[in-house]
Amino acid sequence: MSDFKFPSWRQRLARSLHVNRSQAQSKYFQVATVSTDGLPKNRTMVFRGFVPDSLNLISVTDIRSDKVADWKLSTPKKFEICWYFAGSREQYRVAGHVSLVSSDLIKDAKIRNPERQAAYLSHKFLSEQWQNLSAAAKAQFFWPAPKAPFESESDTEDLSQRPENVNEDISDNFCVVIFTPLTVDYLNLKNSPQLRCLSDFENDWFEVVVNA
Amino acid sequence: MSDFKFPSWRQRLARSLHVNRSQAQSKYFQVATVSTDGLPKNRTMVFRGFVPDSLNLISVTDIRSDKVADWKLSTPKKFEICWYFAGSREQYRVAGHVSLVSSDLIKDAKIRNPERQAAYLSHKFLSEQWQNLSAAAKAQFFWPAPKAPFESESDTEDLSQRPENVNEDISDNFCVVIFTPLTVDYLNLKNSPQLRCLSDFENDWFEVVVNA
Repeated sequence: MSDFKFPSWRQRLARSLHVNRSQAQSKYFQVATVSTDGLPKNRTMVFRGFVPDSLNLISVTDIRSDKVADWKLSTPKKFEICWYFAGSREQYRVAGHVSLVSSDLIKDAKIRNPERQAAYLSHKFLSEQWQNLSAAAKAQFFWPAPKAPFESESDTEDLSQRPENVNEDISDNFCVVIFTPLTVDYLNLKNSPQLRCLSDFENDWFEVVVNA
Repeated sequence: MSDFKFPSWRQRLARSLHVNRSQAQSKYFQVATVSTDGLPKNRTMVFRGFVPDSLNLISVTDIRSDKVADWKLSTPKKFEICWYFAGSREQYRVAGHVSLVSSDLIKDAKIRNPERQAAYLSHKFLSEQWQNLSAAAKAQFFWPAPKAPFESESDTEDLSQRPENVNEDISDNFCVVIFTPLTVDYLNLKNSPQLRCLSDFENDWFEVVVNA
């Protein structure tokens, strides 16, 4: 796959990440989904790189979060990322479908289809993503369930839930989210008139310049 | 309405806006909607203040945009805003329903229900919002339709579409978007453990502190 040719948007996105690298928030994007009851949902997630030799974006989340519950119940698992780079005044809207990778989901997938699996649906990939986290980020996966009523630390201290060697044991709550893009809508606000380019997988990522 | 008591989230949001005021992008938020075919949609919009003595947020858009088309066809017109303040590491997720205000929509509303109308459904309010725009922002509403194939300026020059006195004539394409919040999910990443507060209109904006 080393001769994989990246489409224009992917090369442009790499440049945007480089140009805005001094701002930590340039790795944060907003992810829209539709809940099982048809409501729009939106939250910030952290970009954690691309799956090698592919267009797929990586992020991580807690398997107990509402978005995972919504995605688990829907096929395909739809998303639209809105990624605004304040420094370069560029916006990427990336839409497509999601794949989830966790310890349990890898087991399930192996039972269902032991032959053909994406390389990222593996313990090796999950372990690499876990190791990329800071100690503080790892610790969050051992916290009490999201959105449960808050109790002070003294009330909830449960040593069995707080492995001393948190760096090595992957939490069962750790979930890698793989975003597979199918359409990309790029907007550059610095140009006048503003530059807007649409492209999609179906048209082999051929770019069309349209009015902003 | 001068004794209007703001709920906690509204006071906190005013503080976040103040603390982050040096960063222009602190007035940008991402708005998720659901398209008529059930897809999640997400784009950046600019916060343009609150409707006086209310919790309603103001933004503006082009009436020819896809989001307006989707909203026009749905009741209620649902949204979830994700608003991340990089400087103070705070996130607000604000969900509720939208009202649209444009020259044509004011006319329609007056015909349907001449007696009872929100104060913002008026030419006075629309005109105030138009006057708040910069000349460059006003000019955009006279551009060719969004997402139409791009043509260079020399091809599309049409003086009838370019009023000289663009500052006074409100474009028919100008649309004010009023976001009425029904739930607010606040997250502060600086705290450890992270502080998360949920509140909603139904419970009189009573705040519950939950796990992040």
